[in-house]
Amino acid sequence: MPRPRETQWHRHGRMADVQQESDDAPQQPFAPAAGAWQEIAGRLTLDAHGLVAAVAQQWDTGQVLMVAWMDPEALRRTLETGRATYWSRSRQEYWVKGDTSGHVQHVRSVRLDCDGDAVLLAVDQVGAACHTGDRTCFDADLLLDRTTDGDSA
Amino acid sequence: MPRPRETQWHRHGRMADVQQESDDAPQQPFAPAAGAWQEIAGRLTLDAHGLVAAVAQQWDTGQVLMVAWMDPEALRRTLETGRATYWSRSRQEYWVKGDTSGHVQHVRSVRLDCDGDAVLLAVDQVGAACHTGDRTCFDADLLLDRTTDGDSA
Repeated sequence: MPRPRETQWHRHGRMADVQQESDDAPQQPFAPAAGAWQEIAGRLTLDAHGLVAAVAQQWDTGQVLMVAWMDPEALRRTLETGRATYWSRSRQEYWVKGDTSGHVQHVRSVRLDCDGDAVLLAVDQVGAACHTGDRTCFDADLLLDRTTDGDSA
Repeated sequence: MPRPRETQWHRHGRMADVQQESDDAPQQPFAPAAGAWQEIAGRLTLDAHGLVAAVAQQWDTGQVLMVAWMDPEALRRTLETGRATYWSRSRQEYWVKGDTSGHVQHVRSVRLDCDGDAVLLAVDQVGAACHTGDRTCFDADLLLDRTTDGDSA
């Protein structure tokens, strides 16, 4: 089994904590220092539901797969486990992407936006991101298309 | 001046309306039929603020530029004008991207997601998308990075 690569935590663009993974602690490969997490949580700007928007993007192709929602705990779990974990607004429960479908999202990076109300996850998506079976949740409903030469993202 | 390309409106993946632009109607190159718009508006799933999330992605590179918010009217204006138009939750007003900064987003396509609570805009971004001067709103705050070979999206 290949050794996991180095995991880095950043704060305000500066590296806050570098955790070298080891064979002694394989269960929580991303676990941040408690202080680092508190600092991150304090920078989130939550909406009326207590959530931020989470955009999942296929890391290598750039394809936007889906938009879902995270409360601070869902983000913490995502960072700790390396598995994209969301808050379902309809079911009112945490939802580890792929736990029932097998369509797991392995997280490669997480970025917070400038006003703290959205995160961007670069993921490696197994199978279809959408519950409909489409690769992305944006495949089925094109509202406007000015790209007749097929070169649009 | 080159003639604008054909603009297509779709509904549930089927083309609902094809509007051929002409020199007679240059002001509203994207104006949909009223019925098509009502049908689209009816499929939006609004949050507690009456909004959907809007993800702007650079059409050719795939770079996710920003996440902002739209009420139905902001989406309608975006579709009609071809200029990304958002609702500012902090200022409580419509905001045509680039009107003050010059950093316009020319919209190439708009897609609605499977549950109607997010739209994906493929845009051509002039200059910086972020008010900080960064190209994207996700450039400054990397929370997690497992990509030490620099190949992450």
